[in-house]
Amino acid sequence: MAEAVPVDGYDGDDAMVADVFARDCSSRRIVENIAGKWGMLALAALHESSYRFNALRRRVDGVSEKMLAQTLQGLERDGLVRRDVQTTIPPHVEYSLTPFGERVASTIVELIGLVQAEVDANRR
Amino acid sequence: MAEAVPVDGYDGDDAMVADVFARDCSSRRIVENIAGKWGMLALAALHESSYRFNALRRRVDGVSEKMLAQTLQGLERDGLVRRDVQTTIPPHVEYSLTPFGERVASTIVELIGLVQAEVDANRR
Repeated sequence: MAEAVPVDGYDGDDAMVADVFARDCSSRRIVENIAGKWGMLALAALHESSYRFNALRRRVDGVSEKMLAQTLQGLERDGLVRRDVQTTIPPHVEYSLTPFGERVASTIVELIGLVQAEVDANRR
Repeated sequence: MAEAVPVDGYDGDDAMVADVFARDCSSRRIVENIAGKWGMLALAALHESSYRFNALRRRVDGVSEKMLAQTLQGLERDGLVRRDVQTTIPPHVEYSLTPFGERVASTIVELIGLVQAEVDANRR
């Protein structure tokens, strides 16, 4: 009989079900990275188009170079963002969404739309 | 001729359009509050049912009392969460989503579902 393999600190029957509410689940770590305000804004911007680093930094008003670099690294590691280096002189580095990143960014754009609509409605 | 009223530091034609990418827009402040990991997890939990404070704290594994209280205060101020006090002895305080909160929480639950599906797929 196959034994359940512990995943992310879980064992037994629960092992194969991602549970975002559990602090040790890897889905929770990914959601935390997406969640940070810079993660959400970077994903929403990349949903518009791919960006080079400095253009993305201008789009996401107020983000520091360091925070944006950290954010993009996390999103790349989690499989949401792709980093393409073109071997020109100087090299161009372009950031874009993976298919998984596109799916996540679509829900973020929807969320942002709901908030903007609410803010606009409350101003009237 | 009516003069454009500055809103949130903006003036002119852009005044009435919420822009989440602009650091001074109130939609950005609200998205930042939703975005924090505790905000997202609290909204996702409240999408399941209303909760009393301590039950919500147990559901959102790892949140401190202080962080959850701050998170709920922010979400209440932004119109996503309703706080109902029942005048029993001892008083019951119950947290639930407003209609705006329900709409936002639905997109968060969708986002979490995408991440959990991706995590589960990568384990196979």
